[in-house]
Amino acid sequence: MTTSTEAKLFEIKTVWHDAGRVYLLDQTLLPLEELVLEITTVEEMWDAIKRLAVRGAPAIGVAAGFGAWIAARNAAAVGSDVRGAILSACDYLATSRPTAVNLFWALDRIKAFVERHSSASGRALAELVLTEAEAIRSEDLESCHNIGRHGAELITNGETLLTHCNAGALATSGFGTALAPMFWAAQVQGKQIAVFADETRPLLQGSRLTAWELQKAGIPVTLICDNMAGSVLASGKVQRIIVGADRIAANGDAANKIGTYPLAVLARYHDVPFYVAAPFSTIDAATATGADIPIEERSPQEVAQVGSTVTAPSDINVYNPAFDVTPAELITAYITDRGVFERIENGQGLNPESDS
Amino acid sequence: MTTSTEAKLFEIKTVWHDAGRVYLLDQTLLPLEELVLEITTVEEMWDAIKRLAVRGAPAIGVAAGFGAWIAARNAAAVGSDVRGAILSACDYLATSRPTAVNLFWALDRIKAFVERHSSASGRALAELVLTEAEAIRSEDLESCHNIGRHGAELITNGETLLTHCNAGALATSGFGTALAPMFWAAQVQGKQIAVFADETRPLLQGSRLTAWELQKAGIPVTLICDNMAGSVLASGKVQRIIVGADRIAANGDAANKIGTYPLAVLARYHDVPFYVAAPFSTIDAATATGADIPIEERSPQEVAQVGSTVTAPSDINVYNPAFDVTPAELITAYITDRGVFERIENGQGLNPESDS
Repeated sequence: MTTSTEAKLFEIKTVWHDAGRVYLLDQTLLPLEELVLEITTVEEMWDAIKRLAVRGAPAIGVAAGFGAWIAARNAAAVGSDVRGAILSACDYLATSRPTAVNLFWALDRIKAFVERHSSASGRALAELVLTEAEAIRSEDLESCHNIGRHGAELITNGETLLTHCNAGALATSGFGTALAPMFWAAQVQGKQIAVFADETRPLLQGSRLTAWELQKAGIPVTLICDNMAGSVLASGKVQRIIVGADRIAANGDAANKIGTYPLAVLARYHDVPFYVAAPFSTIDAATATGADIPIEERSPQEVAQVGSTVTAPSDINVYNPAFDVTPAELITAYITDRGVFERIENGQGLNPESDS
Repeated sequence: MTTSTEAKLFEIKTVWHDAGRVYLLDQTLLPLEELVLEITTVEEMWDAIKRLAVRGAPAIGVAAGFGAWIAARNAAAVGSDVRGAILSACDYLATSRPTAVNLFWALDRIKAFVERHSSASGRALAELVLTEAEAIRSEDLESCHNIGRHGAELITNGETLLTHCNAGALATSGFGTALAPMFWAAQVQGKQIAVFADETRPLLQGSRLTAWELQKAGIPVTLICDNMAGSVLASGKVQRIIVGADRIAANGDAANKIGTYPLAVLARYHDVPFYVAAPFSTIDAATATGADIPIEERSPQEVAQVGSTVTAPSDINVYNPAFDVTPAELITAYITDRGVFERIENGQGLNPESDS
């Protein structure tokens, strides 16, 4: 997939390794400040995942891989048990975010890798884990490019799309999932498109991140509050909705950022096609339906305060689920790195035209 | 309607006259600060309406009435033309918010009142206008109490309701429209109820105002972001939705705070009854359908910044409609001061059981 067109592709570095150090763009400070942090301990990586400095299912998987390597490197440096350090780092990092299946997938992959290399130890094992963490990152980028390539075929010249939260470059190793078809359509295929971005309360990933990166990519973007999508759809201004997914159950139900489900209901009411874009690895065959996906509840503070501005009475009761589940029946199709599937069943893509 | 039960009724003063002065609770500072402003000029009243220091259709009508009186009083004090001052104040105040029909209704009422008293002038005319402004306020309170009384009949003991924005005491002279049935059910009828309050972006009237006043009234309230209503309805936790209206067209389409329409679509999808509560005067027979209601677009700043916190790239394009229109077909019934109507047609309530 490395072609001359790809050289032009939009990319933002989110979490990466360079010369023995791991760096991470602190997304909590965007769009005002582009601060790159060096992550030196597993605890720092856990904290970065927990506080959403790195976020988005694919990027969290990549961060987890590098987190395991940091544990290995640090153990090797002081001569302690590298294998043990990796395995306990994997268990520890798994506690940072309960919903993202890519987190567990990446950690399981590191654990399986370590098991396969049972004879390696110390610095040598640490070196090997770095190659695996790097592989997770480069495979993610390739997966994003393939999502973009497949999804762009759905987009017609001149259309306006709508997206929720940030399943963009910042949610991945750098090219996006839900935004990948938009980047590909605009930048590889030269299609004229425009995008409405939901701001995505409470953490405003849409206004802080999606608006920022679409602007960077030169794609016309209009920011709206989540509750304005109804008016926008009623006006007929939007031809297509594409969102990401943190986990897709075996029956096709998809967990994504809170607010995705009401958008899917609106899309159905207005006959606007509603797509979920995600790496095929987001489909979790072990999770039967959306009802089996644990939904992370986050701090009331996120809802009752924006920056330093308190927006609610101090002792107010808050319900703050980070995700909701969109039932498969509301999803027009799934845009994956293996092709576009109209139905997922038993964790498999069932579109007969797909090349999976 | 003045009975011993009413003595117990919840009330918050929003805009009122006392001993020659007009006061207004600055709602932009709630829930952190309860600041009462004295309004001394028409310009100050225009500004208070424009910047939402006083908001909610009925309260805006009351504010407009007192605004006209302030013009009259100030003109009388300097010996200039009181009648002319009132009429130009009415024209001027009408430019403050384009969607709220109660604003125009109150101003037309003042103008008609002045016309009826064609022989009065100077201080005497100003005195008369004060009685009319006071009448608008006391009629609003009575109307709210009647909305509460009629609406409370729909509410069963133990149920949980959901509301959007603030059509509470703060949106009126002090008892609310959408919240009135909840106050009546809880406080007059002693029913156990609980309420989910949408925070209502961008200006957060739900978290700042509705959460605050439900808490004050001792009704259990849970604050959610607007985009969480989908999950909450899907969970089956909500038995009834009641919202306010800024204008109801002759065919029953209702304009209300942005985010009301998507909530109505969700309510239909989940078979949850969806009620619009408003004074009968909110029905505008001169507006045929929702498509004829002008929708105020407000500043991009409201979406791109919360308090002092900038939440979006500095030069981002924003679409910020203040209202949306819910088609009559999605509205289960209208709770008015004249009774509960299942249908509005030609600006009339058509429920045969109603006592209109």
